[in-house]
Amino acid sequence: MGYRILETEDIAGYLRERGHWGTDEPEVREVSDGNMNRVFLVTATDRTRGLAVKQALPWVRVAGPSWPMSPERADAEARAYEQVAKVAPDKIPAIHGYDSDNYALVMEDMSDLEVLRTILNEGGTYGPDTSRRIGEFVAQLSFATSDFGMPSAERKALIAASVSPELCKITEDVVLSEPYLEHEHNHWHPGLDDLAVAFRSDPRLRTEVAELRHLFMTGAQALLHGDLHTGSIMVGTREGAPVVRVFDPEFSFVGPIGFDLGLYWANTLVSAARADALGVEGDHGDQLRLSWDAFRAEFRRLWPTRVDTFFDDAFLDRFLDRVWTESLGFAGAEIVRRIIGFAHLTDLTTLPDPVPASRRALLLGRELIVRRAELTSPEDVEALLR
Amino acid sequence: MGYRILETEDIAGYLRERGHWGTDEPEVREVSDGNMNRVFLVTATDRTRGLAVKQALPWVRVAGPSWPMSPERADAEARAYEQVAKVAPDKIPAIHGYDSDNYALVMEDMSDLEVLRTILNEGGTYGPDTSRRIGEFVAQLSFATSDFGMPSAERKALIAASVSPELCKITEDVVLSEPYLEHEHNHWHPGLDDLAVAFRSDPRLRTEVAELRHLFMTGAQALLHGDLHTGSIMVGTREGAPVVRVFDPEFSFVGPIGFDLGLYWANTLVSAARADALGVEGDHGDQLRLSWDAFRAEFRRLWPTRVDTFFDDAFLDRFLDRVWTESLGFAGAEIVRRIIGFAHLTDLTTLPDPVPASRRALLLGRELIVRRAELTSPEDVEALLR
Repeated sequence: MGYRILETEDIAGYLRERGHWGTDEPEVREVSDGNMNRVFLVTATDRTRGLAVKQALPWVRVAGPSWPMSPERADAEARAYEQVAKVAPDKIPAIHGYDSDNYALVMEDMSDLEVLRTILNEGGTYGPDTSRRIGEFVAQLSFATSDFGMPSAERKALIAASVSPELCKITEDVVLSEPYLEHEHNHWHPGLDDLAVAFRSDPRLRTEVAELRHLFMTGAQALLHGDLHTGSIMVGTREGAPVVRVFDPEFSFVGPIGFDLGLYWANTLVSAARADALGVEGDHGDQLRLSWDAFRAEFRRLWPTRVDTFFDDAFLDRFLDRVWTESLGFAGAEIVRRIIGFAHLTDLTTLPDPVPASRRALLLGRELIVRRAELTSPEDVEALLR
Repeated sequence: MGYRILETEDIAGYLRERGHWGTDEPEVREVSDGNMNRVFLVTATDRTRGLAVKQALPWVRVAGPSWPMSPERADAEARAYEQVAKVAPDKIPAIHGYDSDNYALVMEDMSDLEVLRTILNEGGTYGPDTSRRIGEFVAQLSFATSDFGMPSAERKALIAASVSPELCKITEDVVLSEPYLEHEHNHWHPGLDDLAVAFRSDPRLRTEVAELRHLFMTGAQALLHGDLHTGSIMVGTREGAPVVRVFDPEFSFVGPIGFDLGLYWANTLVSAARADALGVEGDHGDQLRLSWDAFRAEFRRLWPTRVDTFFDDAFLDRFLDRVWTESLGFAGAEIVRRIIGFAHLTDLTTLPDPVPASRRALLLGRELIVRRAELTSPEDVEALLR
């Protein structure tokens, strides 16, 4: 059976064919809102059951067929979910099935949860659990798929299976080079003209970003989520308990662990800049520390279970120090590209006057990139934030 | 057509089937002398033509079927030759064909050349060209298959195609862990007992080797030869001109460039220890410098042709510094494993008294590993040698 693009009216039949739904007629609505894919929510009329269906199209959804993109990104997503399900099933949506012919995932209905970015933009806070869970998520996924958690031969197979040329290229371009070059993708608020020019003509910054770019291209440390921003996280409460779900791992590949932490940190630091601009009291400035502490504690908790005991405790200390430094660099690059690159953050663009907060964030981003080796603790970063 | 193990009497027919030989009956003799594979030399009776046929068996040749080993290592070898042929065809044997059904390479007859290690062990020297060519070889292969010389998407395909779980595991074990552990593979001259014990109980050395091991496992910088010792190099003269051929790249995979340089350096440093022990005058101590200078010069010569111009000149300087440091570390690990690990070097074992030279080499190896970051030039290493 070849690939077919699923429309709203096909979904109920499709789910029946694959054994995910009974004879009753569900309500189906398309709720696609990412850039890339289609998503359908399927709900029993009595509201007792729900499912989501996510299908990758052979193009970028918001652009249409004029921007082709291999739907094989859904394979990467399914593979990432499969790996996470082994070690952190509580932190991703339940996956009921993956149909590789149609690049379609059938998964948990998360319509009762909210996207973390939306909550933050609406004046909400992170709450005590979110960043801890994210730190644990990165530790659990990366440890399990590193040379510490996975036997050497299995790791090599994972590296081969998870190469993702098209999606890595997007990151290599829009995050790790374009913002520092003249490029048609770039745009920015006129109030940032001077900084955009300065960033493009700063040789030290360019060389440091080249380092991060090379690390991204060659550092096959562990399977990453690959796009771990606050828009890839849903949070909420079920039966009185907090729920955190990381989703959309279609940029997943085997790369440097610091890239996942760094993306998350960048997004928390930008949300802190927004809260500060609005005079909102909150916990925005604490999230880098909370997620790093949770990452490190979880990685250390898993360390005694490593399959490769040649790696000793002193090596772990050094390794974690290096992940810290690399994460800061990637955080800086992510902040910069979200302000003077291709895709901007609503956290800043929806501010009454985005300029002051954007300037501060840009300068923070630059410091994180060029001074990452001097910043040795979350407190050092918090001092930069103030 | 399935896989068949070729015997001497099959070779002429096999070559005819594949269009490599005419109707005349050649002389065929088996000349296998590596650990892993069978090699046949095929010569026309009038001596005007010759070929070599190399076949990977589904086991380690010298051990027999009791040590199974996937013959797919020949795919890695063919792939490496194919890459090198594009950029340094003068430094490998001419490849006339690869038969992936039978894991057999038909290649240049090099029986007029000699293995570099043999020459050195018989009191010969490197001569002015060998190490320069080796440095250029590493630069040409690694540049072309790095993110500098190869477009991002093509690189990802190369990484996926070149994973080599079985052969990488051998290196990870016998080079980058066993010598520092109690392991049945290890053996050494009784005169080295104290050093073998000291190396196994040296926490700093262990942690530094763990760093190198992790770099070997995760540093997907470029396609490597993977086993670039003086036994993988043939040299000689044809029509008055020096000839250097690197062969046996079956350990090839995408890894850290310093691993190829380091292996070669270790072998040159051990040959220098041998020459010194025998009071042989020669050029043995110059080879690290000659190969490094040639590597660096060639890499810099290729730099302006890079496909990814985001990498700037300042990044190149840093990158080469890092390759230098990593190469020293791998050189140290290779020296150590060749003296107290599984497979020893005839350079030392055939000395009348191998102990003094072996002790000096072991201590040099340790210094290269633990002090690699302090050694900034070939002169620093030459000072350690004296």
